[in-house]
Amino acid sequence: MTFINTLQTAWKKQDSLVCVGLDSDLSRIPDHLKKEKHPLFAFNREIIDATAGLVCAYKPQIAYYSAVGAEKDLELTIHHIHEHYPGIPVILDAKRGDIGSTAQKYAAEAFDRYQADAVTVNPYLGEDSLRPFLNRKDKGVIILCRTSNPGAGDIQDLETGGKKIFRIIAEKAVNQWNENGNVLLVVGATWPEELGQIRSLAKGMPFLVPGIGAQGGDVEQAVLSGKTQDGTGLIINSSRGVIYAGKGEEFAEASRHAAEALRNEINRYR
Amino acid sequence: MTFINTLQTAWKKQDSLVCVGLDSDLSRIPDHLKKEKHPLFAFNREIIDATAGLVCAYKPQIAYYSAVGAEKDLELTIHHIHEHYPGIPVILDAKRGDIGSTAQKYAAEAFDRYQADAVTVNPYLGEDSLRPFLNRKDKGVIILCRTSNPGAGDIQDLETGGKKIFRIIAEKAVNQWNENGNVLLVVGATWPEELGQIRSLAKGMPFLVPGIGAQGGDVEQAVLSGKTQDGTGLIINSSRGVIYAGKGEEFAEASRHAAEALRNEINRYR
Repeated sequence: MTFINTLQTAWKKQDSLVCVGLDSDLSRIPDHLKKEKHPLFAFNREIIDATAGLVCAYKPQIAYYSAVGAEKDLELTIHHIHEHYPGIPVILDAKRGDIGSTAQKYAAEAFDRYQADAVTVNPYLGEDSLRPFLNRKDKGVIILCRTSNPGAGDIQDLETGGKKIFRIIAEKAVNQWNENGNVLLVVGATWPEELGQIRSLAKGMPFLVPGIGAQGGDVEQAVLSGKTQDGTGLIINSSRGVIYAGKGEEFAEASRHAAEALRNEINRYR
Repeated sequence: MTFINTLQTAWKKQDSLVCVGLDSDLSRIPDHLKKEKHPLFAFNREIIDATAGLVCAYKPQIAYYSAVGAEKDLELTIHHIHEHYPGIPVILDAKRGDIGSTAQKYAAEAFDRYQADAVTVNPYLGEDSLRPFLNRKDKGVIILCRTSNPGAGDIQDLETGGKKIFRIIAEKAVNQWNENGNVLLVVGATWPEELGQIRSLAKGMPFLVPGIGAQGGDVEQAVLSGKTQDGTGLIINSSRGVIYAGKGEEFAEASRHAAEALRNEINRYR
């Protein structure tokens, strides 16, 4: 099973476009978990067990682990998902990008060490920097196109030959980088107009859509602008809105309610 | 001491623009080190002890460590440099770039966890993604401008308003992002013409220059195109050319000779 196949099956089987972002921060997890040997894993495990019936993917953000030396927590988290919920793919959000020989090592980090099913990558270094990822046919390569942050346009909106850079990236992704059918794009929910433009040219290519919730993206607009004809095509991520939905002992139950509410809201517009 | 001050002092005191890139690969280190508890650190320590009198900086590439779960080797390596060679700054080559809240975590990874003096960052996400790094006044923020790889031009050479993207990045770095005087640029030695163009507009801003040696960059051309008026301004990196200069028990001695030869060659053209 390739990442794309697994994703398509999960969309259907789970009836969900929701991705839960595991941006788990030591300073924000409930106190009773802080004394665990692997507190971020303990937190993630409960979130995962509570939400696994409601999502099409999980997306740990690697910086939350590497900032505090919690690589083991990340390994345990991904292993837990694979072992208990094998139909739910794991996207490692790492935004890697480097020259070929180093990109090879980053691909090994994401796919071999952490056993992620897909990874986010930054296209600024050009095609040869993406090749070590693209060559992994069974894995997903999710290329930054129009990101969700306020300053996304600083570089991504610069125009060249009448087209903005993010559009050039989308065109290259569709026409040059996708021979293995394993490319996806990152398009922020905070920019529904751009999301619609990129959908028009990217046909059925799946998008990872961050920016819902804490970042201010609107669910209805994102779904209507970004969905494919069959009402899929989107991996709509919520991190803080789900994982910090509640506090104390009931945090996982609260995360389940938040994930369910988001799934239902998204499904209303598909 | 800020990173820039330390660097300037090292240029002068060591009479060297050489940076040794610690892209240390388990499959390429001498066999007798492979049984060490921390083989990459054991390798690096000998390289560092052999070359510390000849360099202005060290630059470990984080992917070589994270691909194989060798975070501890990286920590020990940076600690060893700080403890024994406190005038030599450490650049963590990580090419990070993410939305603000995550960029904060990446800054913590580089500067707090690993205690690096500078880090390489990718500008594709725009100014707000760089702020958590730029706000660290004492640290160096080394922004990708024109990278050394063959496909560097795919995105970086796209023209907007008559200027290539790499030039826009250089201008923003000089005019908008450098209030704290802690910004540097990555400009590959493989592109001497672009290196000269960027030097013209970046005035005295220091450049990290990869691409010498294995990647084919010419030392004479890089120095002549990139140096500042006082014959500094460059951190010229060699990784494979130095650390794999020799084999077996004599590897560190060979790396010293290679670093010395590179220092002398560079100094001939300053």
